[in-house]
Amino acid sequence: MHSLDLNKPDGRKLTLYSNRPIEGTIVAPSPFAEPQGANPHLRWHPMRGEWVAYAAYRQNRTFQPPPEYNPLAPMVDPANPTELPPGDYEVAVFENRFPTLTLESHSPPTLDVPTAAGEGICEVVVFTQDPLASLAGLPLSRIELLLQVWGDRTARAARNPQIRYVLPFENRGAEVGVTLHHPHGQLYAYPFVPPVPARMLEQEAAHFASHRQNLLCQMVQAEIANGERLLYRGEHAVAFVPPCARYPYEVWVTPIAPTPDFNALTPEARADLARALKTVLLKYEGLWQRPFPYLMTWYQAPLDGRAHPETQLHATFSPPYRSRDRLKYLAGTELGAGMFAMDVLPEATAAQLREVHVVLEES
Amino acid sequence: MHSLDLNKPDGRKLTLYSNRPIEGTIVAPSPFAEPQGANPHLRWHPMRGEWVAYAAYRQNRTFQPPPEYNPLAPMVDPANPTELPPGDYEVAVFENRFPTLTLESHSPPTLDVPTAAGEGICEVVVFTQDPLASLAGLPLSRIELLLQVWGDRTARAARNPQIRYVLPFENRGAEVGVTLHHPHGQLYAYPFVPPVPARMLEQEAAHFASHRQNLLCQMVQAEIANGERLLYRGEHAVAFVPPCARYPYEVWVTPIAPTPDFNALTPEARADLARALKTVLLKYEGLWQRPFPYLMTWYQAPLDGRAHPETQLHATFSPPYRSRDRLKYLAGTELGAGMFAMDVLPEATAAQLREVHVVLEES
Repeated sequence: MHSLDLNKPDGRKLTLYSNRPIEGTIVAPSPFAEPQGANPHLRWHPMRGEWVAYAAYRQNRTFQPPPEYNPLAPMVDPANPTELPPGDYEVAVFENRFPTLTLESHSPPTLDVPTAAGEGICEVVVFTQDPLASLAGLPLSRIELLLQVWGDRTARAARNPQIRYVLPFENRGAEVGVTLHHPHGQLYAYPFVPPVPARMLEQEAAHFASHRQNLLCQMVQAEIANGERLLYRGEHAVAFVPPCARYPYEVWVTPIAPTPDFNALTPEARADLARALKTVLLKYEGLWQRPFPYLMTWYQAPLDGRAHPETQLHATFSPPYRSRDRLKYLAGTELGAGMFAMDVLPEATAAQLREVHVVLEES
Repeated sequence: MHSLDLNKPDGRKLTLYSNRPIEGTIVAPSPFAEPQGANPHLRWHPMRGEWVAYAAYRQNRTFQPPPEYNPLAPMVDPANPTELPPGDYEVAVFENRFPTLTLESHSPPTLDVPTAAGEGICEVVVFTQDPLASLAGLPLSRIELLLQVWGDRTARAARNPQIRYVLPFENRGAEVGVTLHHPHGQLYAYPFVPPVPARMLEQEAAHFASHRQNLLCQMVQAEIANGERLLYRGEHAVAFVPPCARYPYEVWVTPIAPTPDFNALTPEARADLARALKTVLLKYEGLWQRPFPYLMTWYQAPLDGRAHPETQLHATFSPPYRSRDRLKYLAGTELGAGMFAMDVLPEATAAQLREVHVVLEES
């Protein structure tokens, strides 16, 4: 993997990544000339025991581009700067101009609930220069590179002692609120382990303490043995509809061997994980022969300087549809109580996805 | 409060409630003749440590009514039965025909994750016979009655030793997935304390153990003293935008004195809580001069036979809009990580809601 670090005119950082060497003369553009001056803060929610982030400058963005303007496309006309330069690179990562968390955050307000500076990192991860592509359509080599990029961003975030957790994700589709359709994801680095991965780590740690086994790796062995919900089974990675799916068409993708984070992947496991991931994405696209919206979230070990044999790198896909033409709305029992209600069995959605025929290129 | 218990032809139970005596000759209709035969089950989610409910018969409902058919309107023509009879009553509660949980659930499947019968109660709570009304527009006497009805349903659910938690809620508006606009809410009775109230109880118990004070009551005192986010302040109840709001326009409504559940409300507190609730609903309707969608959830003490001085009856409103014409989508950081990101400060939405002038009738 080759990379090139650049600074944007407004002070934000940009890194270009490629499997090929990158020309050192590339200059980073920005649609913005002034430094961003973001100053988000955190407030403690005493009843839920969790932090909430406030970035009030996000709502009234002064920048109102025309609808055809794509800030994630490589810049063509310097009079109309985008976020990315032209040049021969494959993946680009830059600091979000409207971050929910930033390392420059300072001076939180004093309130009746505890507050803290909104320290963290919010990055945009652009998967390709092609605005009409999708992650599913990118070559395996690009998906492997992306797995390396997520690892590199994790390692870089870890250099800041206040960062405790790095979470890459992709919101895909207008149905999940996406307005910018150029293929991209985001990466949040948090100054604490957020509630969802914290809960998972608790469960994984309790299981490891009593069984001396990695919980998800054990679930994977059961899925391989059962086979009914399996979507991909390679030498090093699997994809399956979990027996406890909370969303119709939910899928998990994970290495087979214990692997706490992106940087613990062997080259062989990374290549197979890319195949598992691409298989799922192509099955989603093929299911209804149209772009398939989802939230993809990657979980890994926290950054606390300790080994984490109990936890497993894995992606979860949470699609918003419960059938071809009906969305699943999260309402009373899901958001209010936290108990998800499913009207379709994981075995049924797995059967549908298993039937979608997928051909991967040789990697 | 007067009530009348009836049985529907398909075996489901119906209770009519009113502030006036109810004619004993009313007969309960049903759009369905056959017993429902629902048999949901629960599966344990090992990675999150929570139950997920599966009611697969919900997706393919055989009953496909015409769009103008309103099953919650009082029946006019016995050839076209609805869920409710004609007659002089105010509020009606009946068992959901397509329940996520039911006391008749049995024989869960055997899987690689733990499973259990989907025992519980799912009820529909109809607020009025008028299909065009809204909760905001109902008289205070009706809202007080509704608070009594929720208490009565809690007491009835508590007679089943397997029920541990009762959660009334209202999903309002097409934006949160509601297709049936006749004013109604739902009530779920769970065989466990679900994750969200379980987390609250944990936080409340920890606070009570170290401060000997009810956490939410203490927050209420701070809100009253500060005043900036207060929307209603009566002798016995308040409504306010919490300083740690996770949704724009989020509001909490609660009694001022420690009150663990609906049935601990004094008549005076109940009347004032109805005023607080109606004030919030009218402010919501007035804000943009149009129906305002929300998820309203009521939290109370669990049913475990113990006193709960640490916990407080309260409603939370989670509206889906972040501004007049933009929805807040829950995506990567909210659903994937569990950290909510807000681009508007609670003080700003409180100021907007405080400006909406509301007049309540004399109660």
